[in-house]
Amino acid sequence: MPIPAANLNPPFNIVRLSHVEYGVKDIAASKAFYVDTLGLQVTHEEKGRLYLRAMEERGHHCISLHETGESSVNVLGFKVWSEEELDKAKAWFDGKGLPTEWIEKPFMGRILRTRDPWGIPLEFYAKMDRLESIHQKYKLYNGVKPLRIDHFNMFSADVDASVEFYGEMGFRTTEYTEDAESGRVWAAWMHRKGGVHDVAFTNGTGPRLHHTAFWVPTPLNIIDLLDLMATTGYVSNIERGPGRHGISNAFFLYILDPDGHRIEIYCSDYQTIDPDHEPIKWDLKDPQRQTLWGAPAPKSWFEHGSLFAGAETKESGLKAQPIIAP
Amino acid sequence: MPIPAANLNPPFNIVRLSHVEYGVKDIAASKAFYVDTLGLQVTHEEKGRLYLRAMEERGHHCISLHETGESSVNVLGFKVWSEEELDKAKAWFDGKGLPTEWIEKPFMGRILRTRDPWGIPLEFYAKMDRLESIHQKYKLYNGVKPLRIDHFNMFSADVDASVEFYGEMGFRTTEYTEDAESGRVWAAWMHRKGGVHDVAFTNGTGPRLHHTAFWVPTPLNIIDLLDLMATTGYVSNIERGPGRHGISNAFFLYILDPDGHRIEIYCSDYQTIDPDHEPIKWDLKDPQRQTLWGAPAPKSWFEHGSLFAGAETKESGLKAQPIIAP
Amino acid sequence: MPIPAANLNPPFNIVRLSHVEYGVKDIAASKAFYVDTLGLQVTHEEKGRLYLRAMEERGHHCISLHETGESSVNVLGFKVWSEEELDKAKAWFDGKGLPTEWIEKPFMGRILRTRDPWGIPLEFYAKMDRLESIHQKYKLYNGVKPLRIDHFNMFSADVDASVEFYGEMGFRTTEYTEDAESGRVWAAWMHRKGGVHDVAFTNGTGPRLHHTAFWVPTPLNIIDLLDLMATTGYVSNIERGPGRHGISNAFFLYILDPDGHRIEIYCSDYQTIDPDHEPIKWDLKDPQRQTLWGAPAPKSWFEHGSLFAGAETKESGLKAQPIIAP
Amino acid sequence: MPIPAANLNPPFNIVRLSHVEYGVKDIAASKAFYVDTLGLQVTHEEKGRLYLRAMEERGHHCISLHETGESSVNVLGFKVWSEEELDKAKAWFDGKGLPTEWIEKPFMGRILRTRDPWGIPLEFYAKMDRLESIHQKYKLYNGVKPLRIDHFNMFSADVDASVEFYGEMGFRTTEYTEDAESGRVWAAWMHRKGGVHDVAFTNGTGPRLHHTAFWVPTPLNIIDLLDLMATTGYVSNIERGPGRHGISNAFFLYILDPDGHRIEIYCSDYQTIDPDHEPIKWDLKDPQRQTLWGAPAPKSWFEHGSLFAGAETKESGLKAQPIIAP
Repeated sequence: MPIPAANLNPPFNIVRLSHVEYGVKDIAASKAFYVDTLGLQVTHEEKGRLYLRAMEERGHHCISLHETGESSVNVLGFKVWSEEELDKAKAWFDGKGLPTEWIEKPFMGRILRTRDPWGIPLEFYAKMDRLESIHQKYKLYNGVKPLRIDHFNMFSADVDASVEFYGEMGFRTTEYTEDAESGRVWAAWMHRKGGVHDVAFTNGTGPRLHHTAFWVPTPLNIIDLLDLMATTGYVSNIERGPGRHGISNAFFLYILDPDGHRIEIYCSDYQTIDPDHEPIKWDLKDPQRQTLWGAPAPKSWFEHGSLFAGAETKESGLKAQPIIAP
Repeated sequence: MPIPAANLNPPFNIVRLSHVEYGVKDIAASKAFYVDTLGLQVTHEEKGRLYLRAMEERGHHCISLHETGESSVNVLGFKVWSEEELDKAKAWFDGKGLPTEWIEKPFMGRILRTRDPWGIPLEFYAKMDRLESIHQKYKLYNGVKPLRIDHFNMFSADVDASVEFYGEMGFRTTEYTEDAESGRVWAAWMHRKGGVHDVAFTNGTGPRLHHTAFWVPTPLNIIDLLDLMATTGYVSNIERGPGRHGISNAFFLYILDPDGHRIEIYCSDYQTIDPDHEPIKWDLKDPQRQTLWGAPAPKSWFEHGSLFAGAETKESGLKAQPIIAP
Repeated sequence: MPIPAANLNPPFNIVRLSHVEYGVKDIAASKAFYVDTLGLQVTHEEKGRLYLRAMEERGHHCISLHETGESSVNVLGFKVWSEEELDKAKAWFDGKGLPTEWIEKPFMGRILRTRDPWGIPLEFYAKMDRLESIHQKYKLYNGVKPLRIDHFNMFSADVDASVEFYGEMGFRTTEYTEDAESGRVWAAWMHRKGGVHDVAFTNGTGPRLHHTAFWVPTPLNIIDLLDLMATTGYVSNIERGPGRHGISNAFFLYILDPDGHRIEIYCSDYQTIDPDHEPIKWDLKDPQRQTLWGAPAPKSWFEHGSLFAGAETKESGLKAQPIIAP
Repeated sequence: MPIPAANLNPPFNIVRLSHVEYGVKDIAASKAFYVDTLGLQVTHEEKGRLYLRAMEERGHHCISLHETGESSVNVLGFKVWSEEELDKAKAWFDGKGLPTEWIEKPFMGRILRTRDPWGIPLEFYAKMDRLESIHQKYKLYNGVKPLRIDHFNMFSADVDASVEFYGEMGFRTTEYTEDAESGRVWAAWMHRKGGVHDVAFTNGTGPRLHHTAFWVPTPLNIIDLLDLMATTGYVSNIERGPGRHGISNAFFLYILDPDGHRIEIYCSDYQTIDPDHEPIKWDLKDPQRQTLWGAPAPKSWFEHGSLFAGAETKESGLKAQPIIAP
């Protein structure tokens, strides 16, 4: 199927991706990774729970970690424009026959909890506690000096359908890979906030979370993190990179947290805010779409993902991802 | 006056600032500056006219230079969401009693030409020719490797009024300086596209254009440009910087083109996309608002600006900008 | 064998490595690679010959390319302190029973041509034409912006013997890898000029040249080169990197020229000038000696090298290099 | 006078500058500055004394701070090649009629304490305690991430004489400023270790120490330090920079410690190891010698220096330094 045209009049107004809640086995290990190594800032801590933000964020948290005894992705969070848009969101999910409920969580206003058609747990909200700005408290910068959460990347067993569903919600495609043989979309990058993506989907057993990404300004942030991880016992948590993707132009690094949740640190994307911004199409057989330069991705990068709590996975009907060295 | 609340339901939907048209005296000198030194890419050239874009832009141009024999700012351009929004824009300016007309220009669709209440020439459009992506043609990168136009900064003789007018249009304030003595807003930074600003206003004889800014990813781009300018005959075109502003957190450099038009090259701003993003207030007496660190700005930086074609300037009723070294 | 103690009173005073002469098949292809892509500066060009220097060098050339129709390393060049030291060098090589002759080459003074005991062609000189400084001609900087030649890395079939021979000449070991099982030195890095190395030796079929290295100040130089090579037809010339070696702390990139000569671009080494600077010992089984972080080296990196003109190679008695991922 | 030719056969072999001992008023304030802000590493601490090293140094210290109740420079330290060279040094200073004595200090072997003809306290040694390498302990990197001490810059009331004296000791001139009117050398940069300088002399009331410099690899280290200082109460300790000197090509920052001792952080110098490396001559009237680009230096930078313990200062016979903006 061709990539659908951008929906410029979506049913409700999503501002951006906002936060992820991970289930983890050992919150002290998670803290050592996210706080002491990556440099995210603690905004709240209590027994078994840790809330974190990046350096330029004013919302209360972009990651919350819950020591549930198992590695899972509990929910992906998105901020909408207003309470009114939240009501529209509920109506739209209800109209799709998808489960909706209003829930309460600390540090946040009214929350719409729902799932996409494949079971990915989603939550939408308009208000989260706002914190004072810390982006000029340079003494606090540490680790990779993460500036903000940037996107979620998910395995989907039917990328065409995922793109259609999220496209209807107003996510606009910036780049995509087409499998010329089947005419199917193999992977797509879709945004709300004017960068390359808030969400992306790749063909594979799904739904699963491939990674959550954080934005940094320069490749040197990433090289500093590599030096730090390689000399503090985290060398085996480095999975792939550094390298540059053809798609998105990202200078990237993929690392695994102590529970196997994959985190991408990246820079060098670009502004996509124009409503007539044309998606870039890549051929599945072009190795530079994956790796403009850099070592080929390891097998684990194509195969491993985090499970969403309460969602059953399904194999994709398409053949396995071709692993091609550039 | 307190800073007005963000207008989250503006009369028409401006996407972002888009382009500036400069009148210049010697287009060959301008080309040497903008193309050979800054590294902007030529998208069209004809006798007396030059159109340029930055590396990640797909719109046809962000600067057009017209050899008119005098140094002037002919118009500031803004992109709106759709043709429908363009019609709404016309209605809104008409309703304000401001002059409007539909004009034609090469490389662009329908253009609404108007002026703000102080005479600043503005144009709005929905469609401009789209060009193929060059952000991965690394062989073309040159000079400061500019990625995109970022904002316009203007002198206003009544910043409170400017902020109210542009605020009503939907520009949201991210940071501002208050003169505690008079209770007046001294300067304000306002955005549409989710960064610190698309437009900014500073107290002074106005309206005049203080500068047009381009975004680069790292301070090293700026240092490379300084080395290049200092050794190719442009050392006296370096006016201020490098340094960091407290306001906006920008790592900045200000340079003057051969006609005296001021260009800022900057990096290190932050994302402001949340509708409830709170403006940061600075006190006029805090020297770090201007210069978090760096040499004090020279007198010319406070006083010199480019004239808008067809607009008469007026002195501000407020006292002169206090020049305080940090 | 243990690593020999530094010889602080060498038989003659070598200042530093200086230049390499490569035989190439197509000098136009070599020029596109070394000049247009790497950014080395042409100092002399004539039919079939090209002489190049890096940005901060004042000696006439650090590489000369000769279109001989075959890929070869014709000679490795070293600068000595004075003409008197050159005479001492001749006496020392003569005393070893190694072939010596005085030869003439353009752009250089008196040259002592000789070979090491394994046949590596070496030349020593005190005077080479000096050129005007270009390190502040920033308009000339291009490609990876190489600042200076840094070192030669060679395969040796008997690293213990190579270290002993070059050690006697005054090269001081900064780091080395020991094969704990055999007690043999597997690889060694040796310097004259106060960095990690002017020459290095690694176990393997030898003598062959593994690579010639150029120094750049930051990892961003290397990333710029990768972006350029990946988008100008040189993606398959990228062999390994970027990554960081444990040994030498080098942030590295290995690329292959059109004739298969391997070039390293690197930064982040350190000063070793103290006569009592202690060598760092690494265990052959420690994967971080090779790769502090980064993808494992490809097979070609362990196996491929350039042949020295007129030298016969011999297999090492030690087992093949163990390829261990970190 | 013309700059003297390099003395390639000096009376004793100085390896490099090594360390400085500062008298300070409040060692806790000094520690906050040097350790918590600059990022130097503590190697020994006792009541009233603090010993520090930079990240790639293996010698015990490059700075020692003594809480003496007054701001002073107690001694400048240099490492020589061997104990034998130390004896030669004593003979040479004795021969000059300068005071010499063997002293003992913790963490060091035999020390020759002496003064230059203008009273600058100097000490020479061959052995200092060697510490384990920490350059790959990336968790320790902090502040400006200083890699090594680089040079001393001194005011001299007779630069010609200083250059002659230090030149006889084997320091080789890399760059110098000539006052065309008087034919006198205004300032000179002289090295032993193969960089632009170990010592430099500038015309002015002397002897006084203008600054001690530390080397970092990139301008971003310096920008990080500026951000940190500007937001942790040290904004008024920033005296000059960032900018680039024409002389030495240094990208520089000058800061003042709590006692007014000036520290330079710099990068971008170049290798000067060749014995026939030609000095670069600058004209006193060329403003780019001082400032290739950047704001003009403040008056304090030309006038303020630290006093050497036990040395009387004398005004220079030459006119005051002309302060010219570029």
